[in-house]
Amino acid sequence: MRPDSPLAVPSDALFGVHNLPYGVFSTAAEPGRRRLGVAYGEHILDAGAAARATGASAELTALLDAPSLNPLLAAGRPVWTRVRAALTAWLTADEHRAAVEPRMVPRADATSHLPFDVADYVDFYASEHHAATVGRIFRPGSDPLPPNWKHLPIGYHGRAGTVVVSGTPVVRPCGQRKTPADPAPGYGPTRRLDIEAELGFVVGAPSPQGSRVALADADEHVFGVCLVNDWSARDIQSWEYVPLGPFLGKSFATSVSPWVVPLDALAAARVEPPARDTEPLPYLDDRGARPPYGLDIALEVRLNGHLVSRPPFAAMYWTYAQMLAHLTVNGASLRPGDLFASGTVSGPEPRTRGALIELTWNGERPLELPDGTRRGFLEDGDEVTITATAPGPAGTRIGLGEVSGRVRPAH
Amino acid sequence: MRPDSPLAVPSDALFGVHNLPYGVFSTAAEPGRRRLGVAYGEHILDAGAAARATGASAELTALLDAPSLNPLLAAGRPVWTRVRAALTAWLTADEHRAAVEPRMVPRADATSHLPFDVADYVDFYASEHHAATVGRIFRPGSDPLPPNWKHLPIGYHGRAGTVVVSGTPVVRPCGQRKTPADPAPGYGPTRRLDIEAELGFVVGAPSPQGSRVALADADEHVFGVCLVNDWSARDIQSWEYVPLGPFLGKSFATSVSPWVVPLDALAAARVEPPARDTEPLPYLDDRGARPPYGLDIALEVRLNGHLVSRPPFAAMYWTYAQMLAHLTVNGASLRPGDLFASGTVSGPEPRTRGALIELTWNGERPLELPDGTRRGFLEDGDEVTITATAPGPAGTRIGLGEVSGRVRPAH
Repeated sequence: MRPDSPLAVPSDALFGVHNLPYGVFSTAAEPGRRRLGVAYGEHILDAGAAARATGASAELTALLDAPSLNPLLAAGRPVWTRVRAALTAWLTADEHRAAVEPRMVPRADATSHLPFDVADYVDFYASEHHAATVGRIFRPGSDPLPPNWKHLPIGYHGRAGTVVVSGTPVVRPCGQRKTPADPAPGYGPTRRLDIEAELGFVVGAPSPQGSRVALADADEHVFGVCLVNDWSARDIQSWEYVPLGPFLGKSFATSVSPWVVPLDALAAARVEPPARDTEPLPYLDDRGARPPYGLDIALEVRLNGHLVSRPPFAAMYWTYAQMLAHLTVNGASLRPGDLFASGTVSGPEPRTRGALIELTWNGERPLELPDGTRRGFLEDGDEVTITATAPGPAGTRIGLGEVSGRVRPAH
Repeated sequence: MRPDSPLAVPSDALFGVHNLPYGVFSTAAEPGRRRLGVAYGEHILDAGAAARATGASAELTALLDAPSLNPLLAAGRPVWTRVRAALTAWLTADEHRAAVEPRMVPRADATSHLPFDVADYVDFYASEHHAATVGRIFRPGSDPLPPNWKHLPIGYHGRAGTVVVSGTPVVRPCGQRKTPADPAPGYGPTRRLDIEAELGFVVGAPSPQGSRVALADADEHVFGVCLVNDWSARDIQSWEYVPLGPFLGKSFATSVSPWVVPLDALAAARVEPPARDTEPLPYLDDRGARPPYGLDIALEVRLNGHLVSRPPFAAMYWTYAQMLAHLTVNGASLRPGDLFASGTVSGPEPRTRGALIELTWNGERPLELPDGTRRGFLEDGDEVTITATAPGPAGTRIGLGEVSGRVRPAH
C-alpha cells in the first residue's frame, strides 16, 4: 500500500482497525447531506458509498446509506457483528482497496453531527467517589451516601432534545438562584457553571414495554459508548432539585462525542468492577459474569487546554449492565437511540474527579491553571475538552475521541 | 341535512363544531394505515382524505395526510388557525357535504393510536392542594410545601418512550421497595400502584436552543391539551427518589387521551388563576395577562366505573404559560411533540383529589366503592378512567374525551 494512502493506518492508531467507531458527517461540498461514517486514522470512511462500491447486500447498504445511526442501532447484535466484519474487510483487504480508497474523506474536511437521534436520555450517578465527595461537601458530618445508593444505581431522565454534538457552543443558562443566605431567589445567569465528565451508552435493539432486560442480556441491547459532558448549573440545581430532582440545572445542554465506539471494540477493556460491600438484589447481581462488565477506560479533562483531571472509569461502582437492568426492571421499554450516561466519573484521588464542584470543593479551592488563571467554576469563553482511551488487543489502545464545548455568555 | 348524516351533530355536542380535536386512528379494514382524524359527533373525519376530496392546497393536504400530528404541530399557529377554519368549513358548509360525508368513519369502528410522537416529556407539580396534601401525609407537623414551591413550577423529565394511548393495558411494575421499617429493600411487584389525573400540553412550534420562550408567547408554541394518567408506584418511588427525583416509580407507563383538543377550542374556558401569595419573578409574572392562562376544565376520575373524584383544573396554582416559560428560561429548546403535564390536579375538597395517595391518605383510609369493594391502592384488573369537559361558546361544553387503562398482573 502507498504510505500516503488513507488506508495506511498503523494497527496501534487510536482510530485504527480495532476501533472503527461510527459517526455522522457532512462535507463543505455538500453541507446538507448527512452521511454515516466510520473513523479510520485521519480519515472517515463514507460507509454508504463504500457499501455501494464494494457490492454489499441491499440490507447492509440500506443500514449504512443513512443520515443517522438509528437504522443500524435497531438492527441488533447479529447485524452489528456482520457490519463490523464487512467494514474490517473493506478497510484492510487488498481486493477492496480500489473501491474503498476514493470513499475516504479527510476528517479535517468534515463536519460532525449528532451521530444518532436521541430517544430517551437517562443520567445515572454510578460513581461512589463522586457521590460521596458531593455528600461530604454538602452534608459534612453525616453519611456521605444516601441510604439507597448501594442498593440501586440512582438515575433520572434528562432532556433528550438538548443533547448536542461536540463543538456546539454552550450558552450560559439563566434561571432562579438562591443560596441558603438569600431570603428569596434571584434571577440571572448561573454563577456556578460546571461540567460532568461521563461515559454514555447507546442503546440499539429495542425491548417491549412491560418486560425487563436481564443483566446477562445487556450486550444484546447496548451498541456502543460515547463521551458525555453533562453541563450543570449548580446554583440553579441546588435551589430547584428538592423534591423532584435536577431539571433546569441540567436541561440547557448535554454534549456528546461525535464517534460511537462499538462495544465490540472494548473487549480488551473489560475488567472486574470494584469490590462491593452491599449484597445486590438478584436482578443486579453481576458476580461471576464473564466477561465482566467493568470497563477500563481512562478519561482526561482539559480546561482551556490544561489537563485538570484523569477520571478512571474502572473505578465506577455500578456497571452499564446493572444500569440497564435497573432501568428496565419496572417494564420500561427501550428504543433505538436511547442514551444512558454513567454520571460523573470520579476516582479516589483529588485529581481524578470529573466535575469542578469536586475538583474545587464547591468553588472554595479554585484550580490554579498553568497560564496563571484560577477557576472555581467556568467563565465565559472557557473551553472544556474530555478525551478517553481504552486498552485494545495486543497492547494497542482504542480512542474514544473527544467531547468539547466552549461557554458563550448568557443572552 | 339528513338527520342520520354523520355531519348532523348538535352544536352543543361534546365533540361538536366548537371542539374539533385531533387524533390518529386506523380501521379494521386497513389496520396498518394510521391516519390523522378529527373527532366530530360519533364519527371521525379522515382529515387527509377530506383535504384531497375538497381540493385543499397541497401544503394543507400534506399536513393532514400524515400518520401523526407532528407535521401539523411543527407548522405553527398561523397554519393551525387556517387548518381549523378549513375543518370547520368542511364539516358545516353545504358545498362540502358531498365530498366530506363519505370521509366520516364511525368512532366505534376505529382504533386510536398515540396522536403524536412524543419528543421530550416533562411532568410538573403545579397543584398547591396536591403538593400540600402530600406534604401533610409524609411530613406531618412541618411546612407542607418545599421552600421553592411558590417561587417556581417544580418539574422533572419523564420517559417519553413509555407514553401510551388510552386503552393500553398497564402491567404492574416490579422494583425495589422498602418501607422505613424494613432493614433492607426487597424486590417484587409494587404494592402501591396509583394514578395521577393530569392535564397535558402538547408543544407545536419549536424554539431554538439557547433562547427562551416568554410567558406572553406561550400560545405561539402550545398547540393543545390532552388528558394524562401518570401511573405511579408509590413504594418504588419513595425508596428511589432522594436525591435525583422519581425514576422507575413513574417510567413504566404514562397514558394519554387519544384526542388533542386545540387551545383554540378552549377560549371560553380561560379564567384567572387562583390568587397567589408570593411575588413571582418577572419571567413568571402573569398578572394582567389577557386572556388569562387559567383553564376552567372539570376532570372526573372513575375507578371500575365508580366516580371517585372531580378534580378542578381551575384551582391549579401554576398555569401552562408559566410552566412553559420556566421550562425554557435556561435556554432549553422545544421540539414539536414535546409534552408537558401539569402534575396531579387536586382541588381543596377531599373528593376533588386526583391521586389515590391523597384520596386514601396513603392507603390508611380506603375508598368504599358502591359495589362494596374497598381500595387503598389499585388491584390487578382495576380500570381507571379520567374524563374532562370545559366551557365552550354560548353555554356549550367541550369534551376532552377520556384516558383509560386497566391494570394487568406483574409478569
